[in-house]
Amino acid sequence: MFVASFPASVSRCVSHLSEMLEESVGLGAVTVLGVLEQAYFSLQVIYARRKYSVSPPSTAGPPEFERIFRAQANCSEYFPIFITMLWTAGLFLSPGVSSVCGLLYLYGRLLYFWGYSESAHRRLAPLYFSAQVLWVLIGFSSLGVFLTFCRVYLKVDVLLELWTA
Amino acid sequence: MFVASFPASVSRCVSHLSEMLEESVGLGAVTVLGVLEQAYFSLQVIYARRKYSVSPPSTAGPPEFERIFRAQANCSEYFPIFITMLWTAGLFLSPGVSSVCGLLYLYGRLLYFWGYSESAHRRLAPLYFSAQVLWVLIGFSSLGVFLTFCRVYLKVDVLLELWTA
Amino acid sequence: MFVASFPASVSRCVSHLSEMLEESVGLGAVTVLGVLEQAYFSLQVIYARRKYSVSPPSTAGPPEFERIFRAQANCSEYFPIFITMLWTAGLFLSPGVSSVCGLLYLYGRLLYFWGYSESAHRRLAPLYFSAQVLWVLIGFSSLGVFLTFCRVYLKVDVLLELWTA
Ligand SMILES: N[C@@H](CCC(=O)N[C@@H](CS)C(=O)NCC(=O)O)C(=O)O
Ligand SMILES: N[C@@H](CCC(=O)N[C@@H](CS)C(=O)NCC(=O)O)C(=O)O
Ligand SMILES: N[C@@H](CCC(=O)N[C@@H](CS)C(=O)NCC(=O)O)C(=O)O
Repeated sequence: MFVASFPASVSRCVSHLSEMLEESVGLGAVTVLGVLEQAYFSLQVIYARRKYSVSPPSTAGPPEFERIFRAQANCSEYFPIFITMLWTAGLFLSPGVSSVCGLLYLYGRLLYFWGYSESAHRRLAPLYFSAQVLWVLIGFSSLGVFLTFCRVYLKVDVLLELWTA
Repeated sequence: MFVASFPASVSRCVSHLSEMLEESVGLGAVTVLGVLEQAYFSLQVIYARRKYSVSPPSTAGPPEFERIFRAQANCSEYFPIFITMLWTAGLFLSPGVSSVCGLLYLYGRLLYFWGYSESAHRRLAPLYFSAQVLWVLIGFSSLGVFLTFCRVYLKVDVLLELWTA
Repeated sequence: MFVASFPASVSRCVSHLSEMLEESVGLGAVTVLGVLEQAYFSLQVIYARRKYSVSPPSTAGPPEFERIFRAQANCSEYFPIFITMLWTAGLFLSPGVSSVCGLLYLYGRLLYFWGYSESAHRRLAPLYFSAQVLWVLIGFSSLGVFLTFCRVYLKVDVLLELWTA
């Protein structure tokens, strides 16, 4: 009797939400890791300010300092974009796939920071890598939003249609 | 029997959440669009670096370059504020209204970037426009948080009270 | 009969989610406050640009201007990190504790901005304070993600185990 009365849509919604919460643990872990990475970059700038005697508010100094300063600035600039796409792809498409991409992105950014600290040229390879991973996350986010739109407004489950076609 | 036993508050909560998820598709779409706009701005800086031969880590160059560089930097600085208000207004007040404001903001920022690239003066009109839209989003966010606070802690549905007054 | 048929896990999930929504009002309020603070910082830079005649796209000027400019830039750089940790600690651990930390952080950042505007040295004490609060939020976020991971994947409620040990 209960099963018959309980609207299927509500039940599906609830279990979907409960799953969402459970699976978003991975997104939370990658988020914390990303913040720790940013904290590491900031500390490197503080050490470099001491080493090369570049006192705030100045940001100009020897090229060694400026590369470290710009590496952190560039990573900070992309951090909100990264977090936004991590969670959009994670909530609208797949938390697991999104978390794995997130780890790859953070790894690429670490190599970018280390490379840029050594020479401007060494920033390029990891920059291309992390940019590609970010494009994948943007693609997953777009796909997730599109599929959710189709399900909610057009009542079409595109993946199911493709599968059974 | 089921209907009587099932607590109304839970049922309201669930349907509210299910609606929230469905309607947040618009917020997700505006978010992806905002990230694509930021990616476009970044690419313009990369092209300008090549055109005016401003190699990283340097950020100083001819005024043409510096305007493009600063236009992207300014938009990046406001991007997290924008995303934060888009979702706060969207989740606590109305996803639809918030998404429309989001589109207007992104349009304003595109005009800002193009205007600033041409001359410092041409950045002003679109800056005022996008700032106004952002203030509207901040107002909606505040209102949404205030109304939710009244509903949850004071058990008063302010809008309903006003309506039936 | 209803009570017996209704799966306990679903019921727990729903009430947990409903609580989450209700308690996240505090997180929303701190978020709006943080955005208002950032808007205040931006306006100070605009006033300083007029006062010291530093027209965009230039960012170089007298030390008084550069300190205000850098104070706002530094707060903007940390804003996404702050918002991310506020919500991660709030959703995975405790919205109340996280909101209180958020208020302390925003207070520290206000003192940082005012101190930095006066002299580079006066930025230090509030910087240490706000950095400590941010580390507390990072700690709470990590703990929240860890406890949720244990509950979801290892089916162990660590806090309950410790309590009843
Ligand atoms: N972007 C920052 C990253 C590191 C940081 O947060 N530094 C602290 C302590 S030296 C600060 O107050 N920086 C001043 C500033 O950013 O202008 C910097 O350039 O220093
Ligand atoms: N703010 C960046 C925007 C574009 C970007 O991400 N550029 C890449 C490739 S040129 C980079 O590594 N920039 C170095 C830097 O930001 O210092 C810039 O000034 O270049
Ligand atoms: N970082 C900004 C903060 C204030 C702001 O948003 N200013 C507006 C009006 S003066 C602007 O267009 N700034 C140009 C820029 O950031 O290059 C600044 O340096 O001006």
